[in-house]
Amino acid sequence: MGPHPAVAAIRLAVRRVLHDILNDHRALPAPSGPPLTLVACSGGADSMALASALAFEAPRLGVRAGGITVDHGLQPGSADRALDVTARLTALRLDPVDCVTVSVGRGGGPEAAARDARYAALDAAAERHGAAAVLLGHTRDDQAETVLLGLARGSGTRSLSGMAAISGAHGRYRRPFLAVDRQTTRRACMVQSLPVWDDPHNADPAYTRSRVRHEALPMLEKALGKGVVEALARTAQLSRDDADALDAWTDEAERSVRADPALPGELDIARLYSLPPAVRRRVLRRTAIAAGAPAGSLFARHIEEMDRLITAWRGQQAINLPGRVEALRRGGRLVVRQS
Amino acid sequence: MGPHPAVAAIRLAVRRVLHDILNDHRALPAPSGPPLTLVACSGGADSMALASALAFEAPRLGVRAGGITVDHGLQPGSADRALDVTARLTALRLDPVDCVTVSVGRGGGPEAAARDARYAALDAAAERHGAAAVLLGHTRDDQAETVLLGLARGSGTRSLSGMAAISGAHGRYRRPFLAVDRQTTRRACMVQSLPVWDDPHNADPAYTRSRVRHEALPMLEKALGKGVVEALARTAQLSRDDADALDAWTDEAERSVRADPALPGELDIARLYSLPPAVRRRVLRRTAIAAGAPAGSLFARHIEEMDRLITAWRGQQAINLPGRVEALRRGGRLVVRQS
Repeated sequence: MGPHPAVAAIRLAVRRVLHDILNDHRALPAPSGPPLTLVACSGGADSMALASALAFEAPRLGVRAGGITVDHGLQPGSADRALDVTARLTALRLDPVDCVTVSVGRGGGPEAAARDARYAALDAAAERHGAAAVLLGHTRDDQAETVLLGLARGSGTRSLSGMAAISGAHGRYRRPFLAVDRQTTRRACMVQSLPVWDDPHNADPAYTRSRVRHEALPMLEKALGKGVVEALARTAQLSRDDADALDAWTDEAERSVRADPALPGELDIARLYSLPPAVRRRVLRRTAIAAGAPAGSLFARHIEEMDRLITAWRGQQAINLPGRVEALRRGGRLVVRQS
Repeated sequence: MGPHPAVAAIRLAVRRVLHDILNDHRALPAPSGPPLTLVACSGGADSMALASALAFEAPRLGVRAGGITVDHGLQPGSADRALDVTARLTALRLDPVDCVTVSVGRGGGPEAAARDARYAALDAAAERHGAAAVLLGHTRDDQAETVLLGLARGSGTRSLSGMAAISGAHGRYRRPFLAVDRQTTRRACMVQSLPVWDDPHNADPAYTRSRVRHEALPMLEKALGKGVVEALARTAQLSRDDADALDAWTDEAERSVRADPALPGELDIARLYSLPPAVRRRVLRRTAIAAGAPAGSLFARHIEEMDRLITAWRGQQAINLPGRVEALRRGGRLVVRQS
């Protein structure tokens, strides 16, 4: 008799990713010994399931497997809990197992600050141990939530593309569970008798993601039908591919509209005009950022106003953009420069 | 003292569209007299506001303005109500005013069937009167709902692009209110003492759109903040532009991957491989449809499987697609044909 279907599902997902990691490792100029893969584990169902699947699959494939847990120091008893998770990872025969305490700053809100501190600690641990990859337990449900959060920003295809299966420096981070639902990870922990810890933050309505998870998504399912989570996850993949293709086009267009290769801030109006609006606006946005406009302060209305210098020219004055950048039309050129 | 801000907003929106209609009309080879613009009016707040703004602006700009209301015959008393709307449009001094009764079929569910019957009637009325345009009262809120409905399909950027500001044969349909919110149209009717009719279907939870309007969107606003409707409407515009750009790229790619101009079903594998996945999958989808696969039966998994013939070739057999279409690899070519 094989393993429970939930356990089979998480193991298969991890096995596929380990195959990719092994292939990448073998393609290195001088691969030395088996590659090390770390699992980032909070003690919650998703990452405990991930740790258990890694512990099962890695020795069978000739991969070394370790774990790391991060104590954010944000809740009473978090240090004890981190030690507890460390013990569980060790019991799964992962080695090395790290427990890292971070201090969370305040930049960009509590969720972003905790995330920044966590990834910095994971990066450092990966470097310290020479790990080939760090596995993250994000599920299809997390992906759906991320797409909804991106939708709320209303900033287009890239913001709808959710989390990547592979990300970070050298493609270090891997998310084997993006097509696995949360219920499966929970069941896999249950049938393997793995205790899991439910982060109270996940249910705290003060956090946007928690409201999305517990209020918005269930209501969307009620209104639109059961397939919503799957539809959102599929939207992430399609949007990511579309955004990548448009970025590639923008790379090429950026070069082709340069009036003079030596002057990156001077673009040929006629060539800009002939681009599709979606590509032209991406070129304009990049040009403004290259001239010194901070990306975070550059809004759709700024790009719209720049675009009107090209598509609705009636002698407008120079346009002021954030970061003391100005855009103006001179002869057949659009000039974007810091003043 | 100028008009109430809500009235000013709806008039401005209509004025802009009438300017476009006039410009298009003047660009005709032989423009004869002032162009006629019809408003499609259900008697609800959105389309009554639209009718009132058209009645106000059209004479000032030298545009003829008429109206049409459609009796779908789906509710008791619908014929009386249609006559009542006709009387109100006439009282606004619109001329001609048509009241058309349609019979709603059953194809594609009740909402789709009613919509098909309605547009057929509007098309016929536009032809009958030689109208240059038909104005529709869809608001920003309708647009946000449409984006959410598209999101639930999970079929990507095009399905997130909502309703177009201009659509239909010869760009006949215009939606002046896509950036105007529903509250504004309601207020504009109130301050102009225009009676409005609330379609009970709009509040009937048996209809998906009604559930989106009354349950899903309010809950999303609660979870994500007040800007959700605006963010969804902006997503529609950005997604439309992105989808248009990718379609244009696909047009070009479709020609460039033909192995032989005379054989549209034979594509060069190497050239397909070099395309970004988003463009390649669009080419594959179009090729399958051109070979006879019904668009509605062609799912993402079919395109994925075709794609693996190119990106993950390990001697697969011919793939069966809907409509007795098969895709297979032969030498350096992908062959897509009806069997």
